[in-house]
Amino acid sequence: MARSDRRYTVGVDFGSLSARAVLMDLDTGDAVGSAVYDYPHGVLTERLPDGTPLGPDWAVQDPEDYWNAFPALIPPLLEGCGAAAEQVAGLGLDVTSCTLLPTTADGRPLCRLPEFASRPHAWVKLWKHHAAQDWAPRIDALAEERGEPWLARMGGRVSGEYYLPKAAQMAAEDPALYRAAERIPEMGDWLVRRLCGRETRGSCAAAFKTFWSRERGDVSREFLAALHPLLADLNEKHPGAVVPPGSMAGTLTEEAARWTGLLPGTAVSAAGVDAHVTLLGSSVGRPGELLLIIGTSTCAILNSDVYRQVPGLNGVVPEGILPGLNAYEGGQSCVGDLFAWFTDNCVPAAYVREARREGKSLHQLLSEKAAALVPGESGLVALDWWNGVRSTLMDFDLSGVVAGLTLATRPEHLYRALLESTAYGVRRIMDAMEERGVPVTALYAAGGIPRKNPLLMQIYADVCGREVRLTEGEHSGALGSAVLAASAALWGEEGFAHLTELTERYRRPCAAVYRPDPACADTYERLYGVYSRLYRRYGQEDELLKELKAIRLAAK
Amino acid sequence: MARSDRRYTVGVDFGSLSARAVLMDLDTGDAVGSAVYDYPHGVLTERLPDGTPLGPDWAVQDPEDYWNAFPALIPPLLEGCGAAAEQVAGLGLDVTSCTLLPTTADGRPLCRLPEFASRPHAWVKLWKHHAAQDWAPRIDALAEERGEPWLARMGGRVSGEYYLPKAAQMAAEDPALYRAAERIPEMGDWLVRRLCGRETRGSCAAAFKTFWSRERGDVSREFLAALHPLLADLNEKHPGAVVPPGSMAGTLTEEAARWTGLLPGTAVSAAGVDAHVTLLGSSVGRPGELLLIIGTSTCAILNSDVYRQVPGLNGVVPEGILPGLNAYEGGQSCVGDLFAWFTDNCVPAAYVREARREGKSLHQLLSEKAAALVPGESGLVALDWWNGVRSTLMDFDLSGVVAGLTLATRPEHLYRALLESTAYGVRRIMDAMEERGVPVTALYAAGGIPRKNPLLMQIYADVCGREVRLTEGEHSGALGSAVLAASAALWGEEGFAHLTELTERYRRPCAAVYRPDPACADTYERLYGVYSRLYRRYGQEDELLKELKAIRLAAK
Repeated sequence: MARSDRRYTVGVDFGSLSARAVLMDLDTGDAVGSAVYDYPHGVLTERLPDGTPLGPDWAVQDPEDYWNAFPALIPPLLEGCGAAAEQVAGLGLDVTSCTLLPTTADGRPLCRLPEFASRPHAWVKLWKHHAAQDWAPRIDALAEERGEPWLARMGGRVSGEYYLPKAAQMAAEDPALYRAAERIPEMGDWLVRRLCGRETRGSCAAAFKTFWSRERGDVSREFLAALHPLLADLNEKHPGAVVPPGSMAGTLTEEAARWTGLLPGTAVSAAGVDAHVTLLGSSVGRPGELLLIIGTSTCAILNSDVYRQVPGLNGVVPEGILPGLNAYEGGQSCVGDLFAWFTDNCVPAAYVREARREGKSLHQLLSEKAAALVPGESGLVALDWWNGVRSTLMDFDLSGVVAGLTLATRPEHLYRALLESTAYGVRRIMDAMEERGVPVTALYAAGGIPRKNPLLMQIYADVCGREVRLTEGEHSGALGSAVLAASAALWGEEGFAHLTELTERYRRPCAAVYRPDPACADTYERLYGVYSRLYRRYGQEDELLKELKAIRLAAK
Repeated sequence: MARSDRRYTVGVDFGSLSARAVLMDLDTGDAVGSAVYDYPHGVLTERLPDGTPLGPDWAVQDPEDYWNAFPALIPPLLEGCGAAAEQVAGLGLDVTSCTLLPTTADGRPLCRLPEFASRPHAWVKLWKHHAAQDWAPRIDALAEERGEPWLARMGGRVSGEYYLPKAAQMAAEDPALYRAAERIPEMGDWLVRRLCGRETRGSCAAAFKTFWSRERGDVSREFLAALHPLLADLNEKHPGAVVPPGSMAGTLTEEAARWTGLLPGTAVSAAGVDAHVTLLGSSVGRPGELLLIIGTSTCAILNSDVYRQVPGLNGVVPEGILPGLNAYEGGQSCVGDLFAWFTDNCVPAAYVREARREGKSLHQLLSEKAAALVPGESGLVALDWWNGVRSTLMDFDLSGVVAGLTLATRPEHLYRALLESTAYGVRRIMDAMEERGVPVTALYAAGGIPRKNPLLMQIYADVCGREVRLTEGEHSGALGSAVLAASAALWGEEGFAHLTELTERYRRPCAAVYRPDPACADTYERLYGVYSRLYRRYGQEDELLKELKAIRLAAK
């Protein structure tokens, strides 16, 4: 419960399917209460609400689902905690990225205008909209040809999930709509604008997803025009000062105050990016601390005082998250999704009956059976590429491989091999950093899966040969946004410069620590050696998996 | 039903778990009736009947289970068909090979002697006893070093399933028993001896499994002594004339006549080998006709007027099956076993429910779903090495691989990929033959699985680009032995020379013909290209799968 003599901030974390709000004590950094709001329209992948069909790999959303989250979440949260609006010093938010929306100059979503409501490109493109993937290699090739300085910083290859491919797809496929889109903001920036009445850009998304940098600004007009003539004016479609999350972007307008149930003039932080603010909400962020946020996919974030360009990472951004440090981001495209694929498709009826009889989930049952195996006993190694590869190859034409199958292979052998494959993926990211001189000193895990699967955490510790520390709390994303709000509330436009102070003040112990077992170090060294050989062979040397994808596409 | 004016022969096919007898019309070659006898002791893999434990990979049997099959099968068969013993002109039999048994000089099994009854090596070693596998590479190395002429004929690598490794294991692990074994015959030769009172050796097993040849006789005493000192006298443990199956080995003794319910003096053919006689019972055997006998594993047999040494085959034997032709044998270690592994371990509960609702077997349901896929649509290619590789690598340290997995991969995709993988294995065998100038002109399939799975047959036709002809009948093994009996009955010791005449006289139409679909030829060409790259990489160039096996063994 809240106390009337305390001050609080509110953080709202906008995920793919729901938004979560948390009320945080400004002094202690503790979460006092939280609330969740599911987007009524969820993710649209087949058709728009009016029935207009979407192409393959599309993923769009309704922007009002985001905006409606504020009144649905904040007033009940305050009431539930017994806190008054006057006690709330600041509001912060984070959104997945790159998630973008075309609007008019005054910020109205094009999908709300009758003439554009049936046009797929008028809606929110969610981060995992993959229909722009074809643009990624074209951007790579052109950037390489022109020697664009941002390419190496982005790890040498861009993703189809980024801002430029999504905007290019819009321009190429629906030029009239692209022209009508006087603004194409990140969803986080659009929400902040609607709260404060002022256009800003959160620096984190701008740098990681739009390739902006403090020294050089945005991608040049020349590059954009060469990519597609219509894109020449793209930079004019996201104006406004670039503000680091944690600094104040503005204050709540009268209208937004009524909408959110807070007071007009309440400080609002610049928009954060979901994974990056999770680091702040997890009390991780000292140099060398690698945070894995493990869900359907994994995001890997590290702050370092060393600046290096690391091939295969999503990029490195000076002061991308905390002042004075370089923020690195990498990721794995398929982690929880891989385990869910296995339980959905590969578990025999006898195991389902056994789990039911014992009142366990399939994951629990498989984890218990897999935990009874000795490392190496399965004789299996898998490449964890079921959904392509983000780090460290940034290649979405790759696919999964399993080697070592025998007639004695059982479901728990396969399940363990899949858990291990994602651990090898983590180690690959660590190795990529360390090979370039970026030290990794500690490993942290956040998210729902680490809490549910201790075997996975032990495997990560064993494979990486490091302690893995499980962070506290289920809502570290929203808590991270509340930290941004606190910084903005306490120090206004200078908030970012004080973020480290705050995270140190709020630093919390870990929920659990998994220590590597020296007895299996040699075995995992050998298994990781096998993984690395498969990785090089099918990720770098042999186009075999691409041939399989080409055959698959040709068969359709 | 039999007619009193006709003459017949009896063929008995001794499989791994049961024996099957057939009564055949001597004029037409038609099966008049058949009967099956399950071995009471089956295959012993864990312990002997008295509880003595067996080591890993052991597979032994009770010889009396074989001998007891005659009275259990033949009298009821004759009675059921209304045939008299006088109408039976000959008896033939075939046994799996190499399946061997240590006996005294007069043929009593050592396992029947009280002093040896608890010694695992005293029992029948079934063909799939794999505990002698360690001896195979030692034999290869020594034969290569000494330039033994039989090595290349055997495809360049011997199998741990053969006679020599099994005898060597016996000598090394139980020297006293090996010394007491004055005879170590193939089970087929032991049965023929017991029927006729005369020691002979069937030439087919002698050549394919013991490396005997007409020109050079047995493996030399020098080689045997160099392999293991005790083995120097091994050739003395299997004396007797080498007689080709189809020629008469002898006639039934009074005692054996009473035992079998036939007349004393009835002609008995030399013992055949199961897969090889199936070719005779299937009306296949003209030059270039490749017969696939598809069960838990696949045996591939071809007769040719061309003699070549083909690396990776089990071998080539001049007149191994039919006069004037060279018999080639190859095989795949894991076919029906692979599909059964999949249904046992990898099929989700929803599919089990669906199959039950529709009254189908899991294989039927999966085949229907897989048949609805276009070739290439799965995006998967597998190496069919779940049980090691017989042809064309003869390497049992290899294991299975699946490549191309994605989050969209469904059980029917995997199932189809496994069916296809065995088809690529067949094509590899065909390619190995044709690369060495042994033409393959037609493809035949026998066994239970081809009858049950038309999709598999269509895939074989499509992948191999050949018609696949399904042979008639469920008991072509026993029928083949009845053909041997007919030849021995009609031409006595010259029977073998007339076998071709008989098979032409008995030639029957096929049950079904599967024609390659030209529309998918290109796709399967590309997929086979991918398979071949994986085959070379992990079968010949990269020791990765062996490293996985080594890790697995070390983990235990």
